[in-house]
Amino acid sequence: MGVVGPGEASPDELHAAHDVGRRLAELGAQVVCGGLGGVMEAACRGAKEGGGRTLGLLPGNDRRAANRYVDVAVPTGLGEARNALVVRAADGLIAVGGAYGTLSEIALALKAGKPVVALGSWEIDGVTAAESPADAVERLRSALA
Amino acid sequence: MGVVGPGEASPDELHAAHDVGRRLAELGAQVVCGGLGGVMEAACRGAKEGGGRTLGLLPGNDRRAANRYVDVAVPTGLGEARNALVVRAADGLIAVGGAYGTLSEIALALKAGKPVVALGSWEIDGVTAAESPADAVERLRSALA
Amino acid sequence: MGVVGPGEASPDELHAAHDVGRRLAELGAQVVCGGLGGVMEAACRGAKEGGGRTLGLLPGNDRRAANRYVDVAVPTGLGEARNALVVRAADGLIAVGGAYGTLSEIALALKAGKPVVALGSWEIDGVTAAESPADAVERLRSALA
Amino acid sequence: MGVVGPGEASPDELHAAHDVGRRLAELGAQVVCGGLGGVMEAACRGAKEGGGRTLGLLPGNDRRAANRYVDVAVPTGLGEARNALVVRAADGLIAVGGAYGTLSEIALALKAGKPVVALGSWEIDGVTAAESPADAVERLRSALA
Repeated sequence: MGVVGPGEASPDELHAAHDVGRRLAELGAQVVCGGLGGVMEAACRGAKEGGGRTLGLLPGNDRRAANRYVDVAVPTGLGEARNALVVRAADGLIAVGGAYGTLSEIALALKAGKPVVALGSWEIDGVTAAESPADAVERLRSALA
Repeated sequence: MGVVGPGEASPDELHAAHDVGRRLAELGAQVVCGGLGGVMEAACRGAKEGGGRTLGLLPGNDRRAANRYVDVAVPTGLGEARNALVVRAADGLIAVGGAYGTLSEIALALKAGKPVVALGSWEIDGVTAAESPADAVERLRSALA
Repeated sequence: MGVVGPGEASPDELHAAHDVGRRLAELGAQVVCGGLGGVMEAACRGAKEGGGRTLGLLPGNDRRAANRYVDVAVPTGLGEARNALVVRAADGLIAVGGAYGTLSEIALALKAGKPVVALGSWEIDGVTAAESPADAVERLRSALA
Repeated sequence: MGVVGPGEASPDELHAAHDVGRRLAELGAQVVCGGLGGVMEAACRGAKEGGGRTLGLLPGNDRRAANRYVDVAVPTGLGEARNALVVRAADGLIAVGGAYGTLSEIALALKAGKPVVALGSWEIDGVTAAESPADAVERLRSALA
């Protein structure tokens, strides 16, 4: 599952992303993200605590830009075009917070017909709003069942 | 300038895209788009009528998928990741109509700090709404002045 | 047609690339290249002198990195992955000089089944060696007839 | 480390790739490859037998195209442009066998200044030839020490 959100995030967003990551890992899902800080790092940290594996698709060429909770870092060198790869690598997305990069990932996922659950993120037609990390993970799980 | 919008569009959207393309060309601007049908084709047709040049960045590998009004077709073979290239090749965007691919381009442009004007398209924070093709072109021109 | 070769080239290579570009343009072919200096710039300069159009697919995000003879500059932002796009945008390649980036383009073209003519470049199985710019253009033209 | 080679390979090439993958894993290295069959599959199978982790960067959009020994499959959707990502994700390459896609990866690695060891593969200036899988792994290890 993909967890998408901004590199600079509020404490609430970080808390939510961490919880989402942990819950996804506990369900046995790999967490895919953009590999950097903020929401991405919090989700990876949660996933590691939940015993899961994390994949970070980085915009630059340097694997070392990955946050420390990324197990497999892929330095794509594609810049923001790597957002399309995050979407391709995920069966569905949970979006936390509302930056523009996140919006591009939401849009690409919806275009590809993949379910998107939003937690304090963009309210776009086609996105399912969730009220908590537990609710978000459950809604994504249901959408993919 | 980029003109973005869906491959399947309403008559009103096609009319607006055609007018936008023509007006951009008359200002001397190159029209950059995704190279396919619908809004993209209408904008290119308008640009050619306005004496301008058109660049189409195609998702597939076959140049022949370009609409007939594309002067320079680039078959990127990147799928939807080519949306990032449309944004990179443009100084600003006019979005016509509201598909998800279009939304991803709007989001990437805003992320890159490029002006986006919407004509019957997504009302996203940071986008400038326009009331007519003439208004859209004028607003984009002003934003880039 | 694609003209590929290094950004830093010898006087002989520059002379050859210029001649190749001019001859391709005189045949009515668009010159596609990586858009930077050296062989790329010489080929574009020749193409403009021959009355043709030039397309430069740049590795970076800044259109202004294109040499002055590029008519349509596409800032792909893909780094060396843009070499694959140069190959996709061309029906065949003429390679001038022997850098590693050039070799990657030769290899991708051969993989795609597109003809490659070499002028003082890599002697790879599947490449047609040419003795002069005129010979190179003629061999590529024949291969595509 | 990257292991690159064709999807259709001879028994000798498959045997060599399998041995290379196992030896890299025993040194603690992750095996990065294009994720498909032939040399890629043999290297991944060896890596799994050696207790290692495997990363497959696929050309298409479907994760299920990965061979069964890929732990982390990334469906890039970039076609052959994904070869650049294989090179970016690896500190160095061992090339087994001599297809054109392999040659493009060798060229991109040399361009990026990364060591390339060849086992029955292209004899390009800058590539280190090896005589056996053990020799190839040792030479790559030395080059990166």
